[in-house]
Amino acid sequence: MREVAIVGTGVTKFGELWDKSFRSIGIEAGIKAIEDAGMSGSEVDGIFIGNMSSRFINQQHIDALIADYSGMATRNVPAVRTEAGGASGGVAFRQGVMAVASGMHEAVLVGGAEKMTDLDDASTASVMDSTADAEWEASMGLTLTSLYAMIARRLIYEGTATREEIASFAVNSHKHGALNPNAQYKSPITLDTVLRSGPVAEPLNVFDCAPYSDGAAAVVMVPLDVAKKMGVDYVKVAAACQASDTLALFQREDITTFKATTSAAKEAYRIAGIEAKDISVAEVHDDYTVGGIMALQDLGFFKKGEAGKAVLEGQAELGGKIAVNTSGGLKARGYPVGASGVAQIVEIADQLRNKADKRQVANAKYGLAQSVGGTGSAVTVSILEAI
Amino acid sequence: MREVAIVGTGVTKFGELWDKSFRSIGIEAGIKAIEDAGMSGSEVDGIFIGNMSSRFINQQHIDALIADYSGMATRNVPAVRTEAGGASGGVAFRQGVMAVASGMHEAVLVGGAEKMTDLDDASTASVMDSTADAEWEASMGLTLTSLYAMIARRLIYEGTATREEIASFAVNSHKHGALNPNAQYKSPITLDTVLRSGPVAEPLNVFDCAPYSDGAAAVVMVPLDVAKKMGVDYVKVAAACQASDTLALFQREDITTFKATTSAAKEAYRIAGIEAKDISVAEVHDDYTVGGIMALQDLGFFKKGEAGKAVLEGQAELGGKIAVNTSGGLKARGYPVGASGVAQIVEIADQLRNKADKRQVANAKYGLAQSVGGTGSAVTVSILEAI
Repeated sequence: MREVAIVGTGVTKFGELWDKSFRSIGIEAGIKAIEDAGMSGSEVDGIFIGNMSSRFINQQHIDALIADYSGMATRNVPAVRTEAGGASGGVAFRQGVMAVASGMHEAVLVGGAEKMTDLDDASTASVMDSTADAEWEASMGLTLTSLYAMIARRLIYEGTATREEIASFAVNSHKHGALNPNAQYKSPITLDTVLRSGPVAEPLNVFDCAPYSDGAAAVVMVPLDVAKKMGVDYVKVAAACQASDTLALFQREDITTFKATTSAAKEAYRIAGIEAKDISVAEVHDDYTVGGIMALQDLGFFKKGEAGKAVLEGQAELGGKIAVNTSGGLKARGYPVGASGVAQIVEIADQLRNKADKRQVANAKYGLAQSVGGTGSAVTVSILEAI
Repeated sequence: MREVAIVGTGVTKFGELWDKSFRSIGIEAGIKAIEDAGMSGSEVDGIFIGNMSSRFINQQHIDALIADYSGMATRNVPAVRTEAGGASGGVAFRQGVMAVASGMHEAVLVGGAEKMTDLDDASTASVMDSTADAEWEASMGLTLTSLYAMIARRLIYEGTATREEIASFAVNSHKHGALNPNAQYKSPITLDTVLRSGPVAEPLNVFDCAPYSDGAAAVVMVPLDVAKKMGVDYVKVAAACQASDTLALFQREDITTFKATTSAAKEAYRIAGIEAKDISVAEVHDDYTVGGIMALQDLGFFKKGEAGKAVLEGQAELGGKIAVNTSGGLKARGYPVGASGVAQIVEIADQLRNKADKRQVANAKYGLAQSVGGTGSAVTVSILEAI
């Protein structure tokens, strides 16, 4: 199996991009990544796109759309769209790694894109809720937020984290988002802001939830041997893993841990030949604050019952024990669903190439990205390594 | 790059399956494929699912759904959903090949599934139309059928095929469908039936168009070296290729040929080390009769201007120059979109393993499957080889 490297990254501003179309943001991110790699689009021989729902823009066949508007359809370059709820971008990244590792492709563009704000909020929420089990959850009135609220209640009930500790994850993300020029929200917030914001599904408030956003992100990958000769900054893909769990939450033995995260992480650490303590910087899926807290435990950065306290104490900030969501995470950078998993990879790759500007982590050797679909029904865990 | 083999196939009945859910047909096909391979589900370490639209059943995250209901989520087996309009299943197959070829997976289940008849026909049509360009075609009132009707008009205008020759493709598909116990339509039809059926978009009539269907198909793949030791019938995947074209039809130089087909086919023949004349049996994408005629030309089975005549003369029937759509094709077997590309692979694999019963082609060494998204915006061409 060939080793794979990331040689270029690109990301658009995240936010309510009323003046831009889906196709324009998708192309913007792709061009940035190709330029960053010092390549020409004509060198790319495969495209992989994470995109969650055709319902946001009433367009299936996003694969062909991107191949077309990137100009690559003139060379008939194949394009693949993957969907796995919130993990759509993470899955696309893994497929891109597989494509280069297999020898079937020499240079791939992996993109993630979503334009969610063209619909009214209720319609967008309805699409998001269909990442839960339509027959056994959504049809009963359960929303994705209410499912995560149940998880939060259980964590609090079991004493794994306090309400304040859970809320502190949003404070951490916003603190970093303020340093990211592409973030949707650039204002630091206090714990009080989260705790006093409007309730959505008790105990989660508005500020516990990531926003609906428009945005796109992309990376270019080539074989590691090729990257070494290109004369550009690159990072090695040390592991790209994925795992599944039941679609419905009620079928789990334990809802305070996502087995898909623990399983994918275990495999990723094994393949990369490292342990959780070797990770210096991580992007985790904080579509809800409680998801962020669980991720830090499930990935092995903190023991169960200690992650919330650690975040509240600032140990997940830049300069802390491990720098978490330096991009601002889903909460502050924004959450264009399909783009999210790829944007995480962009942030980690930029950190390991010392291109993260004001939010640069010092001397990081390994970084990790975790992307989650539904209530942990699909999770990708990728580890990048500075060379 | 590891060579890959298909060791098991499974397909459900196609049709209006009112008494079955999406999840039940998906699992039925998967279990059949695993049993056909003489394996246990516990040996599968990756799932790839072709599924076109979450709108048919209001369910995103089909990847997790299938992992869950197949029981594989208990082992956290990763699952990937691909979407490329009508080529969704063909793309899933190629991703499965890539997964085994890369060494990242040892035994994968590739499935395709769609349940289209739970919506009213107008809603289903609207989803299908969104595989065309939403901004430049669908929004202007163009439907997928009207786009193919324009192609048919142009073929007739240029003298590439007559109306009767185009219609004869449906006669060919129905003749074979009558031999397939899993086909949606098992009645042979005459040319007159097609020509006198109700008009949809001139010159195409109802019998020029494949139906909306429910159904699922699956194959199991392992490394070729492993297949040789399993003691089951297997076929080698000689090539799995894919190509793109513009999303909108008006942007093409020539609408009487699909460049994505010619491009993917050229690459597939090169990789397999064969020519078009070496193919004995083929499944091509006849969502519209005119698409089937074009496929026979674009794949190199007949020269441009000769495919229609050949089909009318019976050269695409069992016993003809090349046996085309022995399954009944999309027209007669049925067209559950995401299942279609995988069902084609099932038919070709069964033909090459001498398991096609009444529709068996004699002494076939190579078979080909072609799956199309939109108006040729994405095309997969796969070649299987009897061992």
